Amino acid sequence: MESERKQRPKELYDPELYILSLGGKRIRPLLALIACDLFEKDPALSLDAALCVELFHNFSLVHDDILDQAPLRRNQATVHKKWNTEIAILSGDLMLVKAYEILGNYKSKELKPLINLFTKTAIEVCEGQQMDMNFESANDVSVKEYIEMIRKKTAVLLGCSLQMGAICAGAGKSSQKRIYEFGIHLGIAFQLNDDLLDVYGDKNSFGKQTGGDILANKKTFLLIKALEKARATKKKELMKWLSTENAEPAAKVNAVKEIYDGLGLKEICIEEAKKQTMKAIQSLEKVKASEIKIEELKQYAHQLLARAS
Amino acid sequence: MESERKQRPKELYDPELYILSLGGKRIRPLLALIACDLFEKDPALSLDAALCVELFHNFSLVHDDILDQAPLRRNQATVHKKWNTEIAILSGDLMLVKAYEILGNYKSKELKPLINLFTKTAIEVCEGQQMDMNFESANDVSVKEYIEMIRKKTAVLLGCSLQMGAICAGAGKSSQKRIYEFGIHLGIAFQLNDDLLDVYGDKNSFGKQTGGDILANKKTFLLIKALEKARATKKKELMKWLSTENAEPAAKVNAVKEIYDGLGLKEICIEEAKKQTMKAIQSLEKVKASEIKIEELKQYAHQLLARAS
Repeated sequence: MESERKQRPKELYDPELYILSLGGKRIRPLLALIACDLFEKDPALSLDAALCVELFHNFSLVHDDILDQAPLRRNQATVHKKWNTEIAILSGDLMLVKAYEILGNYKSKELKPLINLFTKTAIEVCEGQQMDMNFESANDVSVKEYIEMIRKKTAVLLGCSLQMGAICAGAGKSSQKRIYEFGIHLGIAFQLNDDLLDVYGDKNSFGKQTGGDILANKKTFLLIKALEKARATKKKELMKWLSTENAEPAAKVNAVKEIYDGLGLKEICIEEAKKQTMKAIQSLEKVKASEIKIEELKQYAHQLLARAS
Repeated sequence: MESERKQRPKELYDPELYILSLGGKRIRPLLALIACDLFEKDPALSLDAALCVELFHNFSLVHDDILDQAPLRRNQATVHKKWNTEIAILSGDLMLVKAYEILGNYKSKELKPLINLFTKTAIEVCEGQQMDMNFESANDVSVKEYIEMIRKKTAVLLGCSLQMGAICAGAGKSSQKRIYEFGIHLGIAFQLNDDLLDVYGDKNSFGKQTGGDILANKKTFLLIKALEKARATKKKELMKWLSTENAEPAAKVNAVKEIYDGLGLKEICIEEAKKQTMKAIQSLEKVKASEIKIEELKQYAHQLLARAS
């Protein structure tokens, strides 16, 4: 009892193990390893970078769940619910620092570009989260602002994971930049797909109730575009649903979905996701690396995005 | 409005400016600059390290104030009171990342030891904060555990600040270690002094109401030592005051102070602080640097500690 209190307080380390044990697709560490392999280097060189980005991602989940007052994460209690907010704050802080600790294993030469890229990314992720919170109370968010928000909140960490893998492989600056851009556009496409799936996804294969974003009035691409495109009666109707508290859930989801359908938003969102995917692929094709492996990565990207429609 | 939401959300950056504007003694950055100067190098070399530790210290204040539910910091509203808990969490996260960003300005060679030292320190500070929270509900904390807690929560950041200054100056490993140890013992002595001042300080020169720790049942050196040394009736009396909610403040402070006096705790605490100060000075004297400057630093240390008794 004494030594536990003294050396490694359990309350601080258990939440880290817990959140990491909940699973997830591990996309970020996978991208770091894949990027390193792309340049024909042993992916093990990028293992610490891979651990760093996964730990950072989980730190952000723990703190975001407090901010969003989310009770569940992957169908299990969130850290602040299972323990308390204090422990969730402090153990999250620790995870963020430990992400840096793992990077500290790299030699001086790689460490500097890795630290600077990771830090720039972490700042943008914080900014993205704040923008997302600000959007909640704003009804005049533009599509451009929305794309910028999801770039920061989601896409930069994918770009960072890939570029870190490239740095570990000793790739040139230009290839580093291309692979980063690939991650950015992939991440934006990915989030647009998520927005689509919430409304149009197959409940069984998507694994969660559809319409959650609609019920939460979440500013997704679809809602923002609807607020922009809807005219007169339709706009009034949409605003009414946004401001009605305690609306009957199924009625609200169906009504908003009908407005979306009337405006052809599903197609517009698919179009935008495709545009982003194209940009991602174009960037990837300019990376100087194994052609076969670039082809494989392209397939993996398509697979990640194939969950939609 | 749009560009603010888009680029640098105000809510994220204002708390940083606010907490830094509240002042404070700036001991940590000062120690970094002093340590660099000790080795006859331009203190400007350690300016980014100095900014890094001050920013980290302020990050920890913002998050600790949430954990401690503190309404005031330096007589002004705490960040979570002035804004809200969500903003305090996220802007705190950003300050922690920005502390790393500033370190990222150093060249590869210095960056690695700086990052590794800073990260090790940040982990210990988190652990110290968690230990402090755990002690709240424990009545069997030993003096050894307490010293270990304040070493982590307070002293390691002083040691880190000094060693960072030494690293920036290109000092040898052995001198780095000595100056770090100087900071550790100085920090522990400093905290013991704070514990004393809360009970025996002059209200006017100390600047806050005495007895605050007693009213909050805070596990200070004095209370821990009292629980260890008090026998029979006195121990029962002390436990009664610890468990009585809504006790009349002045009565509680006086009664507990009387128990402390009966056990000679003021002298014991002064003795322990002196022991730590001696260890600090011994470590400092082994640093290979300008003798005149070492003497000056000794004076500064005595000055810092002279606030007591």
